[in-house]
Amino acid sequence: MKGHPLRNQIEEIVKLTDDEFVFVLEHFQKRIFKKHQIVLHEGDYARYDYFVLNGLMRVSRWDSNGKEHILQFGMENWWITDAEAFHYQIKSTLTVDCLEDTKALSLTLENKEKLSHELPKMQNFFLKKTTNGYIALQKRILCFLSSNANDRYHNLLSIYPGLIQRVPKAMIASYLGVTRETLSRLAKIEA
Amino acid sequence: MKGHPLRNQIEEIVKLTDDEFVFVLEHFQKRIFKKHQIVLHEGDYARYDYFVLNGLMRVSRWDSNGKEHILQFGMENWWITDAEAFHYQIKSTLTVDCLEDTKALSLTLENKEKLSHELPKMQNFFLKKTTNGYIALQKRILCFLSSNANDRYHNLLSIYPGLIQRVPKAMIASYLGVTRETLSRLAKIEA
Repeated sequence: MKGHPLRNQIEEIVKLTDDEFVFVLEHFQKRIFKKHQIVLHEGDYARYDYFVLNGLMRVSRWDSNGKEHILQFGMENWWITDAEAFHYQIKSTLTVDCLEDTKALSLTLENKEKLSHELPKMQNFFLKKTTNGYIALQKRILCFLSSNANDRYHNLLSIYPGLIQRVPKAMIASYLGVTRETLSRLAKIEA
Repeated sequence: MKGHPLRNQIEEIVKLTDDEFVFVLEHFQKRIFKKHQIVLHEGDYARYDYFVLNGLMRVSRWDSNGKEHILQFGMENWWITDAEAFHYQIKSTLTVDCLEDTKALSLTLENKEKLSHELPKMQNFFLKKTTNGYIALQKRILCFLSSNANDRYHNLLSIYPGLIQRVPKAMIASYLGVTRETLSRLAKIEA
């Protein structure tokens, strides 16, 4: 079990014994998805949070003009779901799909809460991960407020290493909230 | 101690006995700030997270063009700090100041962690609050991605009731990332 990507991530924050990690893992289910598979449809309940083992997932919203906005990518070692629908157990306003064949571990809210209760250091892990996520979103908002697409582009390069080689340019533009033309300009400055 | 705003907020998530709340409160310090007082200067370490009892605080960043961007307001019952500098114990890139005379409770990171450890239900409280904050930031990002200033304005009205009566229009525009002219147009649609 040493070297398991989930264990590695947890142990960056709290240490686990082998038995504890086996116990943690019992709360997850292994999932295999195909490229293009929709894992959560808008309007459905979000039963799972996903920890990506390998592959690439995405959370997006279609606006009323039929335009797609990408809220998040989830590559190896990322957690991904419609956070609002998952935590409040309401119908999803977002879509989660796979951009590559993907292996993931799924966790229900019930099991997340059970795990947090039975092993308080897992609650500590979830708190630290959520805090890191909160801070990352604040940075993304500050980039929007300063209308600095260049900062947003560099932010993406640093948090998703290798992503731009794995997805079409249009998706990167959609995540950044810029046009394809602006993205080409940013990528040229970088090259 | 019944009816204390911090206790009310905690008890929306976890129940506390009177003794437990006294114990919680011992981890906080009462702070009184004047209008315009800078509570955290850019470049300083963020020693405290603040729970606002009454008054109004703000977190903002000055960009390289000398333009101010407001990341967050903190009115009654809000938590406010430079989250990155506070949690990672690094120098602040943001400024926290008071827009009104303000009473707040301050919490150090050390006391936050002590409290989480000694009373795991407080860790549960912090996890739920951080998760709610994370979800709120995702919504704000989706509003930016769809370039829908009207949604952003309504989002602000719903999360900060009464705020627009308490601060100059320019600050609302700075929070929304729009010009004063756009804001006037939005406010007119609303009226």
